[in-house]
Amino acid sequence: MTTGAEAIADQHIHPVILCGGSGTRLWPRSRPEMPKPFLRLLGDRTLFQMALDRAADPSMFAPPIVVAGEGHAPHVREQAGTHRLIIEPAARNTAPAIALAAARLPADAVMLVCPSDHHIGDVAAFREGVGRAAALARQGYLVAFGIEPDRAETGYGYIQQGDPLGGGFRIARFVEKPDAARAESFLAHGGFVWNSGIFVFRAGDVLAELEEHRPAMAQAVRSAVAAGHEDGATFRPDAALFTAIEAESVDYAVMEHTARAAMVSADMGWSDIGDWAALAQARAAWDRRSWYNARGDVIGGTNVMIDSDGPRVSVVGLSDVVVIVDKGEVLVVHRDAAQQVGALPGAKGK
Amino acid sequence: MTTGAEAIADQHIHPVILCGGSGTRLWPRSRPEMPKPFLRLLGDRTLFQMALDRAADPSMFAPPIVVAGEGHAPHVREQAGTHRLIIEPAARNTAPAIALAAARLPADAVMLVCPSDHHIGDVAAFREGVGRAAALARQGYLVAFGIEPDRAETGYGYIQQGDPLGGGFRIARFVEKPDAARAESFLAHGGFVWNSGIFVFRAGDVLAELEEHRPAMAQAVRSAVAAGHEDGATFRPDAALFTAIEAESVDYAVMEHTARAAMVSADMGWSDIGDWAALAQARAAWDRRSWYNARGDVIGGTNVMIDSDGPRVSVVGLSDVVVIVDKGEVLVVHRDAAQQVGALPGAKGK
Repeated sequence: MTTGAEAIADQHIHPVILCGGSGTRLWPRSRPEMPKPFLRLLGDRTLFQMALDRAADPSMFAPPIVVAGEGHAPHVREQAGTHRLIIEPAARNTAPAIALAAARLPADAVMLVCPSDHHIGDVAAFREGVGRAAALARQGYLVAFGIEPDRAETGYGYIQQGDPLGGGFRIARFVEKPDAARAESFLAHGGFVWNSGIFVFRAGDVLAELEEHRPAMAQAVRSAVAAGHEDGATFRPDAALFTAIEAESVDYAVMEHTARAAMVSADMGWSDIGDWAALAQARAAWDRRSWYNARGDVIGGTNVMIDSDGPRVSVVGLSDVVVIVDKGEVLVVHRDAAQQVGALPGAKGK
Repeated sequence: MTTGAEAIADQHIHPVILCGGSGTRLWPRSRPEMPKPFLRLLGDRTLFQMALDRAADPSMFAPPIVVAGEGHAPHVREQAGTHRLIIEPAARNTAPAIALAAARLPADAVMLVCPSDHHIGDVAAFREGVGRAAALARQGYLVAFGIEPDRAETGYGYIQQGDPLGGGFRIARFVEKPDAARAESFLAHGGFVWNSGIFVFRAGDVLAELEEHRPAMAQAVRSAVAAGHEDGATFRPDAALFTAIEAESVDYAVMEHTARAAMVSADMGWSDIGDWAALAQARAAWDRRSWYNARGDVIGGTNVMIDSDGPRVSVVGLSDVVVIVDKGEVLVVHRDAAQQVGALPGAKGK
């Protein structure tokens, strides 16, 4: 762990944009070759572009590092131009991906780790929260970014806050996706927030904690980086060494073990856009009129979301449904069953 | 009215196949240029072909006469080869169409008037009923073919039976489409059958009754036929004279007025296939496995009918729905709302 004095050297925050995640529950729009982060799901910018946009202010942020698979590198370049890009030779969940980026940064660089498959409606609230998290990170904390819940959601993990810190809290515990009754009790109890997958910590701190709690992974990432090679702005760690790493999330590998876990939370219109129902909700907040019933005719129903790449869609006598038409696939799904889309043969690539 | 002795001259029944009806509630499969009768909705034969097939046995039937609009004549020829064809210059409902055919037949010819937009599952029961109806027609009756109801259907007109005749009944009255309570009372009361739109009468008898109850229409049809011209097997009445006729059904123009109205009924697996829900039901009886969920994947729902001309359809968390994909149109409709399909912009050609 570095000292506070060293951290003051660079006040800029280093965005690390993770482009993993297959988004199979947003099939058929989201496909292996063009997954969720690279889709225009809300307005004219893709989720990936919006993740970059949120961390683009040079007064606050250093230039970002993007971590993506080889197959998605062309999307990154097409959608964002030239950025520092780290290619993951294989998808190994967030801990190895974050460690790759940390290994490429100065030890005292404050990293803002952002998935690129969620949406944040209130960017000002996000930035304010990032500021609080960065202040804690500069004190050596590893900070998870929590979302103030507005409903008893069972689709997300929760974080329970512990003792207060300036601008945040210590973490009492991480909680896996709860059932409905438990989620209700969290909401009633207070002090539980959704785990957004956004983290803020110094590069040296997350690597030190990884070394302590997952020494094999830390060693493997170090070796893969040492044997990697640079090609302009693109860095490729050694494929064989990286691929041998066991996949694990940074939550499991580091955050649940470190004694310096902290959290900040914000109410910032966050959605993981985890399925079509979540997207319908996000779109309603974004611009209800331009998205609901787009490219379609609806009779005798309400809350119908239609999204078609060409064919006209007509819906009669149904409410709370989503209809997607995309490149030879038609999906019709009830809002309450949206989580099951990933189980469809089409979503599994069959 | 001719005598029984004359009618014995030709025991063969003359099928008259009417190809009217737009079938807008089966949009987007049914379109103005390719309407319901000419679609393969059940198995490999179109409804029109099945109507011909039912009346093709030369031991019982004379060669059929087909009545169709000019725009549909190519479909008739493509699907049925050369037949005696009468072109309706304009759609004027069933009374003028039937009068056209009657005017081209000997007065003592027994006509079997069949719409070509319904389905009959039990052809043996149909033929048995036609035999009974023809026997009554040879006695000078104008016979409506009724369907024994198996449910309190509100989508059909009803016929109430009167005094018995050999093989059938006199008609007590015709009843317009009833509301649900009335339909229930009909079913409970008994003696009410659905009006199938199938009729059996002698050509001379229906023309004589038309002359009595709709003299202007009878005169106009006579003139249009006299000024018509023959082209091989195709007969075209004079377009201007025919088009000037007021549209009216044979029920209104003749059957509700004639003193010689009779009815026979049969339980013959009849469906008018009036909408997608009715087609789903007919398909379930026809071959449930090969039609339900054809070309599609269904999770978390039952009674899903999928019919696509190409794109795969996946349905999640919905029951009792029909999904149709046809030439750039996607229709999703709940079974209970199937009657509303005709009100869609697409079904109205917009």
